[in-house]
Amino acid sequence: MKPILEITSLQNPRVKSALSLSERRERDRSGLFLIEGFRELSRAFDGDVQIQEVFFCKELFLGENEPALLEALQKQGAQLYSCSESVIRKISYRDRPDGLIAVASHMSLSFGELADQIKKIKNPFILIAESIEKPGNLGTILRSSDAVGVDAAIVCDRCTDIFNPNVVRASVGTLFTQPVIEATHEELLPWLKANGIQIVAATPHAKEEFTKTDLTGPIAIIVGTEQLGLSDRWMDSADIQVRIPMKGCADSLNVATATTLLLYEVLRQRGG
Amino acid sequence: MKPILEITSLQNPRVKSALSLSERRERDRSGLFLIEGFRELSRAFDGDVQIQEVFFCKELFLGENEPALLEALQKQGAQLYSCSESVIRKISYRDRPDGLIAVASHMSLSFGELADQIKKIKNPFILIAESIEKPGNLGTILRSSDAVGVDAAIVCDRCTDIFNPNVVRASVGTLFTQPVIEATHEELLPWLKANGIQIVAATPHAKEEFTKTDLTGPIAIIVGTEQLGLSDRWMDSADIQVRIPMKGCADSLNVATATTLLLYEVLRQRGG
Repeated sequence: MKPILEITSLQNPRVKSALSLSERRERDRSGLFLIEGFRELSRAFDGDVQIQEVFFCKELFLGENEPALLEALQKQGAQLYSCSESVIRKISYRDRPDGLIAVASHMSLSFGELADQIKKIKNPFILIAESIEKPGNLGTILRSSDAVGVDAAIVCDRCTDIFNPNVVRASVGTLFTQPVIEATHEELLPWLKANGIQIVAATPHAKEEFTKTDLTGPIAIIVGTEQLGLSDRWMDSADIQVRIPMKGCADSLNVATATTLLLYEVLRQRGG
Repeated sequence: MKPILEITSLQNPRVKSALSLSERRERDRSGLFLIEGFRELSRAFDGDVQIQEVFFCKELFLGENEPALLEALQKQGAQLYSCSESVIRKISYRDRPDGLIAVASHMSLSFGELADQIKKIKNPFILIAESIEKPGNLGTILRSSDAVGVDAAIVCDRCTDIFNPNVVRASVGTLFTQPVIEATHEELLPWLKANGIQIVAATPHAKEEFTKTDLTGPIAIIVGTEQLGLSDRWMDSADIQVRIPMKGCADSLNVATATTLLLYEVLRQRGG
């Protein structure tokens, strides 16, 4: 086990290095990203995410289980840094940091590995999110896809990367406990077609309401960007188009809420 | 009609006054708030919100309908200010402002007036959001309550006020086209009980799933804060408790997505 080191200077190179991971370019380059918060880090641990470093500050802990988690991470080879409050606040993304911020390696599930896993599933249930812009929306979508127990959550033609700190945060760490990958439409579309997985898209122009359409077969629910909705590419490839009723003045819902409706309708139809 | 005035200085007192409305204290004191964006302002106009001033910049318009909306607002007595791009960017809440920002008076629907309206409705469908913290969540909830056509959306014991610019934004202006009020639990609870409106609360401890519980009667769906959920006060007063199934590692959904699920389930059970 690596001994715990102390950091009190905001100029410490480890602090600077952690801070640089707020930039996507640096996340892509290094293959590293930040995980903040006890719940998020616990779920990363449960999901076998490889934790490299943990910056912690006991004075900020909110519960009593933090030391046990730190010990477990240290045993797995993580380098722990005992930090001053100001160091944590410097790295933190939150108004009220809870004293735990980790640097982790990107999860390494490949498209091929995921495809192998899905092949073994009789009636796959997949979520695909195309080019979502806002990290909060993407994280919320992943929180919901975990909640219904999808077989895979796929970020297609990414706009925001799944390792954005605000995606991690809005997902409350559920990013780590379900199979999540990033992929391109060139990979995805032929794969779905070849495997008989029906593509389900929501559009105001569909005839059938989502609650009156059979969603019990092998399906991929696909949702698109906040501004423009799903691209023509996916809309034209959809095997099933459904409509979410809109009784008010607006013609669309927030993308994360619309996604959640579709996901839970599948769950309802499949008998929970 | 008031003639259009020009503003190019960031120091202009009207600009400073508009900017001050980003503070809740100033919104509460003045009874004014900001509405930014073409869609939002159009819906405010449709919803008879009283628009006092409009700051606009033609160069930033994204569509072709902005001049007609401006003319209509001017006819209703609004003071228009033709502004430089830098003035709009100074007041704007957005990365990509679309050249329209208005100062409006708070909507004036009172609890008594709303209660009178609800009395006339045979089978009321109400949403109550208790002490929601994040403006984005509150706005998204209102966007969904508009979409299902609730008879009233009520913000109980407010934490974020409905006139927060990010509530207006996340609601995409649906705040203006449905009956929305702020109220206290002291007003609400006895009123619901006296009118036979059943209080529906979601909790992981409920026996029945929300899709298997009768939600067709006169009901108020109530949802609570992001961190702590619904307060004991409301949970104990609930006539119907329902459970949203959670198949993953997390034990809760984002509050706006959970609310949307409950709202749309009512719609589904009532036959759309």
